[in-house]
Amino acid sequence: MKVSIIGSGSWGLAIGKLLYENGNEVTFWSPSAEEVELLSRDRVYEAKLPGIKLDAEIVFTTSMQEALTHTGVVVIAVPSQFFASTARLLQEHIGVAEPGVMVVSLTKGIERNTLLRMSEVLLKEAPALTEGQVAVLSGPSHAEEVARKILTSVVIASTNLETAEKLQLLFTTQTLRVYTSSDVVGVEMCGSLKNVVAIAAGILDGLKMGDNTKGALMTRGLAEISRLGEAMGAQIRTFLGLAGMGDLITTCISQHSRNRYVGEKVGQGLSLTDALKGMSMVAEGVPTCESAYALAKKTGIEMPITEAVYDVLFNGKDPMQAAMELMTRELKLESV
Amino acid sequence: MKVSIIGSGSWGLAIGKLLYENGNEVTFWSPSAEEVELLSRDRVYEAKLPGIKLDAEIVFTTSMQEALTHTGVVVIAVPSQFFASTARLLQEHIGVAEPGVMVVSLTKGIERNTLLRMSEVLLKEAPALTEGQVAVLSGPSHAEEVARKILTSVVIASTNLETAEKLQLLFTTQTLRVYTSSDVVGVEMCGSLKNVVAIAAGILDGLKMGDNTKGALMTRGLAEISRLGEAMGAQIRTFLGLAGMGDLITTCISQHSRNRYVGEKVGQGLSLTDALKGMSMVAEGVPTCESAYALAKKTGIEMPITEAVYDVLFNGKDPMQAAMELMTRELKLESV
Repeated sequence: MKVSIIGSGSWGLAIGKLLYENGNEVTFWSPSAEEVELLSRDRVYEAKLPGIKLDAEIVFTTSMQEALTHTGVVVIAVPSQFFASTARLLQEHIGVAEPGVMVVSLTKGIERNTLLRMSEVLLKEAPALTEGQVAVLSGPSHAEEVARKILTSVVIASTNLETAEKLQLLFTTQTLRVYTSSDVVGVEMCGSLKNVVAIAAGILDGLKMGDNTKGALMTRGLAEISRLGEAMGAQIRTFLGLAGMGDLITTCISQHSRNRYVGEKVGQGLSLTDALKGMSMVAEGVPTCESAYALAKKTGIEMPITEAVYDVLFNGKDPMQAAMELMTRELKLESV
Repeated sequence: MKVSIIGSGSWGLAIGKLLYENGNEVTFWSPSAEEVELLSRDRVYEAKLPGIKLDAEIVFTTSMQEALTHTGVVVIAVPSQFFASTARLLQEHIGVAEPGVMVVSLTKGIERNTLLRMSEVLLKEAPALTEGQVAVLSGPSHAEEVARKILTSVVIASTNLETAEKLQLLFTTQTLRVYTSSDVVGVEMCGSLKNVVAIAAGILDGLKMGDNTKGALMTRGLAEISRLGEAMGAQIRTFLGLAGMGDLITTCISQHSRNRYVGEKVGQGLSLTDALKGMSMVAEGVPTCESAYALAKKTGIEMPITEAVYDVLFNGKDPMQAAMELMTRELKLESV
């Protein structure tokens, strides 16, 4: 089957590689002629996924028309800030795809002004698609490890379980295990919100707090994002599974995590602007923190960790003071 | 108030130091004349808690009678294998303590033959005590970090909440936050069983598996120990809190964790005997794995991670094979 990967960041590249090796015809779309040239020539993108070679048969193009022609599955893996414009481009050209084409979002984020999840943005901007054609994929899955064939498990969710099951077959490999879910809201909320907790965990790392503090923070972090998720209609068990707790742990402990890294730099005293400088990849947790903060206000859900990260990132609050306040206030909730 | 710490391992020493600094009169008991001499002279125990100095006013003794005389609180921090004999010694001398003396267990484990929790062993072997005098303390709290004043939070549980609250006041410091709970079963099961998951996490480290795999394992690990805990009468929310998820994370990610360390060595190909050689401290997860395995059989609860660790530690199963089987079998549970 022809699969089209929209975006050529590390996660898209890793998934595209696996889908190719699984016997699919793979075409990548990127808006950047430079990227397409580099990838077509070198077959490796050192800045995004170092050391991982892509097969000569994989096609790279800047033409959405070419990318979507006769495609059976579209995988969107662009940063959240480009998601809406990409979805509009998809809408323009989706007619050339196979009938019943399925679209999977790998993007983690919550749109800033509308506070919509990525699958909601997709259905709004690409009305040619129906909800049953759309799925989301999330879970503890650093691109670098997936590409290196480290045992990984992810969740694919669609309100149409048949779609989720078809995609499960398509994505499963010897080293990538795929589970299905119907909780699209939960899987998207987990994938987005865990990045805010990862920034908080990074801040603790930057402050040289220990594992005791980090374990406590991650526990309260999962509790607070579950509260918001539930208020948004997610199933609580999704937060306790791979897409929730699993991905939260992986993101908070990993040296690969860009969100944890940004937090670490901020914890060491850098401003957000300086922390983001020189990063070739996007830290989705930063805009997600703004959206999560707004959602917390809107729903009236208490999210002290998100609020603390927001104050440190955007209001210049001292990270140590924020951490101390958090640890001495929030943790009271544990009591009976 | 006089507080007696029974045992002079790293955890007992760290807690004793904090209790002294909190204004209490602290006496340590150890069965070893050598240890008592070393600690009385050097005030630091390099093999157990390196670099941490104990005040000159702290008393060390091999006499249980001396240790318990006029004491208001007894803290038991001996390895689980010595818990029953220590409890019998306590029973013999508890008459010299203050009336209504409270006893807090810091020991993590499940007695091998009887499959009793430590507080159950205590009440059985020291019938002079009533349940309401007894409490347990657990949570994400590596002794090394607690002694170094890293922000830490723990849970004290007693079936008598008044006891838990009195102890909360006694133990709370600027850097140690204490929450109360009435779920003694849950707090003890969490503290014991998480060590088995930590061995599994260490095995993955030894096999050079990545963070993706570890995040997935820890998620399924919490799910399986929660299942057993619930079957034993624990409250599920305890497993989602600091004593459960929090301590599990800290233990699985920490370089301080002896249980994770033993797993790492076994994952690298060492036998259990060789892995344990040269460790000056006890890895409670090893005997706990046997008890948990027996409890799983007894209760009919599925515990694939515990079973895999059991097979690797005691039946010479190849760690890589066990990990592969686990990741390809167990994780099916995520599906809807």
